[in-house]
Amino acid sequence: MATAGRSGIGTNQEDVRRHNLGTVLGHVHRAGRLSRAELTARMGLNRSTIAGLVTELESLGLAEQAKPSGARIGAGRPSVDVKARTGAYVLAVDLRVDGLTVARVGLGGVVQARATGPVPAGHDPETIASSVVELMRLVVKDVEPGSALVGVGVGVPGIIRAEDGLVRLAPNLGWRDVPFAKILAERIGTFAVPVLGNDADLGALAEHLRGAGVGVEDLVYLSGEVGVGAGVIVSGHKLEGAGGYAGEIGHMPYVPQGKLCHCGARGCWETEIGASAIALAIGCPAERVGALGEYLEAVHEAPEDLRLVGRHLGRGLAGMVNMLNPRVIVLGGYLRSLFPLVHDDVESELAVHALIAPRELVRVTLPGLSGDSVLHGAAELAFEPLLADPVGRLAEACLDVDAALAV
Amino acid sequence: MATAGRSGIGTNQEDVRRHNLGTVLGHVHRAGRLSRAELTARMGLNRSTIAGLVTELESLGLAEQAKPSGARIGAGRPSVDVKARTGAYVLAVDLRVDGLTVARVGLGGVVQARATGPVPAGHDPETIASSVVELMRLVVKDVEPGSALVGVGVGVPGIIRAEDGLVRLAPNLGWRDVPFAKILAERIGTFAVPVLGNDADLGALAEHLRGAGVGVEDLVYLSGEVGVGAGVIVSGHKLEGAGGYAGEIGHMPYVPQGKLCHCGARGCWETEIGASAIALAIGCPAERVGALGEYLEAVHEAPEDLRLVGRHLGRGLAGMVNMLNPRVIVLGGYLRSLFPLVHDDVESELAVHALIAPRELVRVTLPGLSGDSVLHGAAELAFEPLLADPVGRLAEACLDVDAALAV
Repeated sequence: MATAGRSGIGTNQEDVRRHNLGTVLGHVHRAGRLSRAELTARMGLNRSTIAGLVTELESLGLAEQAKPSGARIGAGRPSVDVKARTGAYVLAVDLRVDGLTVARVGLGGVVQARATGPVPAGHDPETIASSVVELMRLVVKDVEPGSALVGVGVGVPGIIRAEDGLVRLAPNLGWRDVPFAKILAERIGTFAVPVLGNDADLGALAEHLRGAGVGVEDLVYLSGEVGVGAGVIVSGHKLEGAGGYAGEIGHMPYVPQGKLCHCGARGCWETEIGASAIALAIGCPAERVGALGEYLEAVHEAPEDLRLVGRHLGRGLAGMVNMLNPRVIVLGGYLRSLFPLVHDDVESELAVHALIAPRELVRVTLPGLSGDSVLHGAAELAFEPLLADPVGRLAEACLDVDAALAV
Repeated sequence: MATAGRSGIGTNQEDVRRHNLGTVLGHVHRAGRLSRAELTARMGLNRSTIAGLVTELESLGLAEQAKPSGARIGAGRPSVDVKARTGAYVLAVDLRVDGLTVARVGLGGVVQARATGPVPAGHDPETIASSVVELMRLVVKDVEPGSALVGVGVGVPGIIRAEDGLVRLAPNLGWRDVPFAKILAERIGTFAVPVLGNDADLGALAEHLRGAGVGVEDLVYLSGEVGVGAGVIVSGHKLEGAGGYAGEIGHMPYVPQGKLCHCGARGCWETEIGASAIALAIGCPAERVGALGEYLEAVHEAPEDLRLVGRHLGRGLAGMVNMLNPRVIVLGGYLRSLFPLVHDDVESELAVHALIAPRELVRVTLPGLSGDSVLHGAAELAFEPLLADPVGRLAEACLDVDAALAV
């Protein structure tokens, strides 16, 4: 997954060099800081080639060399450390049904600035796009002169067509076939076409690269917001499906003739474990669902109705365990606040409904990136073109973001 | 998936040659017959290299060259055709809860002989292994002298640990941690260690290589026997999961507090669509479930109870469509006989419960290999070592199978 979009080994020497440059940058980006010796070992190239590539990244403002920190490798001279530099950054957007977060994220996954705001009532795409741009203006205010905006990534709670960022369906926003990438692009000039991703897919990506799933090849990130979706990584690769729509676990049929779901069907799993069900269980008024996290934090002992939600969570997770046999399930969104309150209820249902062999292997856990999994995933999505071809991407990057956002 | 086990490109010229030899054999095996020109195009090697490899396969008794059939490629001399030869074969076993099939399968996927028998009552692993060996003796009776047995593959309706063929759980056989690969190996001498696979996984493999899913990268094969399992192929690769246990779709929680399932839980999907549910719906006595296919063939108009099973099938398939976004769902086992009777019920529930975007892309269909998907999958599994290294595998192959089975 980490190498998505960077598999195209070139056919001539210059292509190979640009590819290698991106691979070095990818290692530095994911590790934040690592020694030249480690880079040499990971890439299987010789020391002088690595030194040359690092020097080129330095001259591009993407990396810097520093005195080593930490242990030496081998007995020789201490290897020089390579650090990600903030010369390039992306804008990451986490668009939720009940809130909007925009962050400026530098190489190495460092959140340099962030701003949050409400989602305009009515969920009109044009109005939301305007709100996004306002928050973008806030986070780029104090951007270091000369640093380059290299991408915009947006997490959306819906089904996204990958090739053009068309939102096929976002039931809880009331969107169907909304060209949100295009709408946003029209507002931010042409400096970087926004790339959209499903929120749960981005959560999975970020947790895999930087969170609770580092080194884990089979992972599910469950995004528990107003709707419930899953980002699934199998054998280290994103589960895409034929159209990129895989992971709509919230719409697994769960109760025959059950409650009406936003998607139009009855008895979907998310009607039992989504934000509305949680809110109802703890007496959070429907119009305050946006503050559900705070309500949950204030609960010290789960009332019976909330424990029932926990059992529904566990029973549904069991289905996921039986179907996908993941190593780690990360509970994101509201489920992050819910899980500690109903841990035993979740685990007991899991024990009843999951088959022993896959259950022995799975760990249900909280995100390593706290509430920022989707935001970090959006940033990683936006960084992908830079990591595929640093030189080419920088040549197209935006150096005057203020002007671009003034459009 | 087709190249599983053959990705290890060697580090020296001889390794590369052996790898290429396996790749050529793989193409010939899957196509049955194709021209040298097509081989050249598919492998990206030059004509003389291909000619040399084909000649080597001929001398090994694995391929033969023949006058071209069908259209020419290009304007030049007609290219020579290459056909799979029967010099190597495997024994494939389809072990179902209610019946046993053993086949001798030659290169090109040709079933040369088959034998079927009942599964011994009580499902004792030792007794079943003996029955398998008896059927094996029948199918090797008239084997061509000099041809080599290169592998044994077995499809089992359960969860298999890949590395040693331990059956972790086969609820409908009543097996838990049964070392069936080892038990069978002890009965058939040391000529070929049997390789076990989950029945649905093997169905998916075979339908992907030779059936309704040729050229399809995202496919689900649903094995509807006494239990219901899924073999899933995503982006052309088998969905394995952390321990190789993925695909236990029959044990998706489906009805809260529903019927008791063989796995110990309540309300699993297979309690509503498995053989027992179908049998009940059409008045097939429980002790005649082994003949359920025949009972279904005799039904001309589905009674309401059977239509209900169809609706349960459609509703569960919708969950699979939402979760996995497959291009093709192949209905195997009894579902093959059920589907034509309840087609409209299946499709109408699918329309209600599947989200539009993934639903637009999916096709629910019958197997291209009729009732032999699992059997062919077991054969493909058994052929894998030969296709990885034809020379190495032939060197270990068994030329006197009668003696080996007399153990």
